[in-house]
Amino acid sequence: MKSREIRLVRHFTGPVKPEYFELAEADIPAPGPGEVQVRNAFLSVDPYMRGRMIGIRTYVDPFQPGQVMDGGAVGQVTQSNADGFAPGDWVLSMHGWREAYTAPAAGLMKIDANLLPAQAYLGLAGMTGLTAYAGLKRMIGLKEGETLWMSAAAGAVGSAGVQFAKAMGAHVVATAGGADKTAFCREIGADAVVDYKAVSDLAGAVREAAKPLGGVDAYFENVGGDHLQAALDVIKPFGRIAACGMIARYNDDTPMPGPTNLTQIVGKKLTIRGFIVTDHFDLQREFIGDLSRWMIAGQVQMRDTVYDGIARAPEAFMGLFTGANTGKMLVRL
Amino acid sequence: MKSREIRLVRHFTGPVKPEYFELAEADIPAPGPGEVQVRNAFLSVDPYMRGRMIGIRTYVDPFQPGQVMDGGAVGQVTQSNADGFAPGDWVLSMHGWREAYTAPAAGLMKIDANLLPAQAYLGLAGMTGLTAYAGLKRMIGLKEGETLWMSAAAGAVGSAGVQFAKAMGAHVVATAGGADKTAFCREIGADAVVDYKAVSDLAGAVREAAKPLGGVDAYFENVGGDHLQAALDVIKPFGRIAACGMIARYNDDTPMPGPTNLTQIVGKKLTIRGFIVTDHFDLQREFIGDLSRWMIAGQVQMRDTVYDGIARAPEAFMGLFTGANTGKMLVRL
Repeated sequence: MKSREIRLVRHFTGPVKPEYFELAEADIPAPGPGEVQVRNAFLSVDPYMRGRMIGIRTYVDPFQPGQVMDGGAVGQVTQSNADGFAPGDWVLSMHGWREAYTAPAAGLMKIDANLLPAQAYLGLAGMTGLTAYAGLKRMIGLKEGETLWMSAAAGAVGSAGVQFAKAMGAHVVATAGGADKTAFCREIGADAVVDYKAVSDLAGAVREAAKPLGGVDAYFENVGGDHLQAALDVIKPFGRIAACGMIARYNDDTPMPGPTNLTQIVGKKLTIRGFIVTDHFDLQREFIGDLSRWMIAGQVQMRDTVYDGIARAPEAFMGLFTGANTGKMLVRL
Repeated sequence: MKSREIRLVRHFTGPVKPEYFELAEADIPAPGPGEVQVRNAFLSVDPYMRGRMIGIRTYVDPFQPGQVMDGGAVGQVTQSNADGFAPGDWVLSMHGWREAYTAPAAGLMKIDANLLPAQAYLGLAGMTGLTAYAGLKRMIGLKEGETLWMSAAAGAVGSAGVQFAKAMGAHVVATAGGADKTAFCREIGADAVVDYKAVSDLAGAVREAAKPLGGVDAYFENVGGDHLQAALDVIKPFGRIAACGMIARYNDDTPMPGPTNLTQIVGKKLTIRGFIVTDHFDLQREFIGDLSRWMIAGQVQMRDTVYDGIARAPEAFMGLFTGANTGKMLVRL
């Protein structure tokens, strides 16, 4: 069986370009003992993958040039040589960036596509959702009645976090870029929304927006740069910052200076906690319990941006850095 | 009775200059009901005072131009009109920057100058010591066998922290500027010492120094700027940073950019906690208990840098920013 896949051409820093990726075809063998063959239905593109393209060991190993890349994907078993897996079964894997694969069943997670649409396991009910949940619950310790500033609030983690924070009884100031995204932030329940592309003074705009909500108690960092600078200015004393990502920095060719106001960390007695979702899988059961309750109550809704076809996966990935997605960015195969 | 005092001439940003201070004489009234008259013996100059000279409300109110400044001081009662206070009693107050004062006894703390030298209550056994203790115990949660990087390790808080960390069973890499200070750091027990003025690659030098100690688990931030940049590079995953001060930044005329490597906060899953000692007075009893034990065991020693005479108080203060002090900087009156 043939499968098309996306391979990394070479490691790079700076902006992502189409020529760093190539579409290739691979032979997919019949499953050996304990293995299954799977046809992917959706694959996930995520900001953290950018770090794997630089070629330096960070918290995950780099992608290898000439090799197909890994990433979250959901698909259906087409052939099985493993106990407990039958054709038609839905599975979640890290074998993304390809149409099909053969792999040991032991590394796959069976998912229930009747309970939730299969692609939800890549987004709201998957690593994306758990990331938002861990940031709010464990890093920030968000409490009812507090006000959260969510950055990149129309993005995958951001839009999950806005809804979770509201469901937890907090107020939310959302920042996002452009009219469509700010409208989306309102739709999913943000109490106040600031279009960062439309204001010259981000700190001032967020401060004004947060005033009727009692000011900013906590900040969820997805952006870095000017957003972090503004957050340090705006946040109240004893504020908590969950540092989930700094997407504005990932494509820098040369290192960019940080905020000029880091002394606020001392003066305002702030806590900043960086985190990676893989250290918080122990929250999974509690997360799924809360999420189910919130979804049944209609407090949380899914929203994806979908690109069609494996050939468009690099374009979908590049779109993460230009703000092409509202909600989770997915590639449908 | 006459007393000489130091007044702030005007608010300012940028480097501290002698002309921003003036020596003046004031009349000290006889104590009214509930008041005492005190002659100061030592006054404290501290980096946090720099923020009060800018004229902006931070976590403490600014000093007022034309007025005498406040600060920690120890002295002896000369006249008393208050129950429980007799001439000769030693008191700790915030009525620094002056030779004598009359004030309500209710705002003063009686200290035991037999137990410890009176000036210790401005340093190791006072706010300085409690600052180091709160940073290590509460912000970092330093554990036995871990390795701490103490910045400005020959300074007041730094030298207290080096000794406390060693007494807690941790390893210490100390950074300080110049041969005298690095020698002092060794004297007080640092396992490894780096002279930051003598190296071109601070991160590399600290990494090497910490290697036999298992690498840097925690960083105590007193400096900011290049030190913070190096700390983010050197510290191990899940590292904890106590942000106590950033003295390198206090005299900036214009805001200076921060480190270029803040994404390490996410990738290494770091925790950074800013703090001010005044929020941690509840640790006082535990602190004094530990400190007494450590002093009796000879694990902690006092070291001060002393300038003589009220007229030299501005010079002593300015010396904090040029590294003129080893240990606590005091003015003896």
